[in-house]
Amino acid sequence: APCAAQDLAKTAGKNAKVLIDNEKVRVIELQMAPGAKTGMHSHGDNLVVFVTGGDATQTMADGTTKTMSRKPGEVLWSGPVTHDTVNTSKTAIRSLVIELK
Amino acid sequence: APCAAQDLAKTAGKNAKVLIDNEKVRVIELQMAPGAKTGMHSHGDNLVVFVTGGDATQTMADGTTKTMSRKPGEVLWSGPVTHDTVNTSKTAIRSLVIELK
Repeated sequence: APCAAQDLAKTAGKNAKVLIDNEKVRVIELQMAPGAKTGMHSHGDNLVVFVTGGDATQTMADGTTKTMSRKPGEVLWSGPVTHDTVNTSKTAIRSLVIELK
Repeated sequence: APCAAQDLAKTAGKNAKVLIDNEKVRVIELQMAPGAKTGMHSHGDNLVVFVTGGDATQTMADGTTKTMSRKPGEVLWSGPVTHDTVNTSKTAIRSLVIELK
């Protein structure tokens, strides 16, 4: 069955904290320990800001994967997407996921 | 005369770098050395993410000022605003200003 649009704030459990949720944006802080996974989830238009950097692997809804390495202060724009992200670094990764409404 | 809606990317000169500019958002990276000022500028709805923390003083269009102390990873939402910000710390402050279109 196609993956239902899962909410990151739920799939990532205690690793996710909603910092801002108003009529225009929702901002989720993700604190991912080494090996932690977000769980498969979907976003609409969004930005991700890396407060601390690190390496991660993303699995897309179609099963394809991509590895990435992010630096502190890096910011990425993305249109609607469904993916699962695992922290493959030896240190925690802290990021802010900014969802546009 | 009332302050014209000044663009941060112009008033802050070399301290500002536009990282993303699409139909939905504009993201400006600000790297402010100790004592650096942004110059009086205006935003519409916006978020500011502090990559590195520090102390700053903001002067509003009406001349009132407010001091603030920000931590790395802190994120603030603001509606339309006009202000000038000076870095009053001894270290540089790096932030991302995310303007909604």
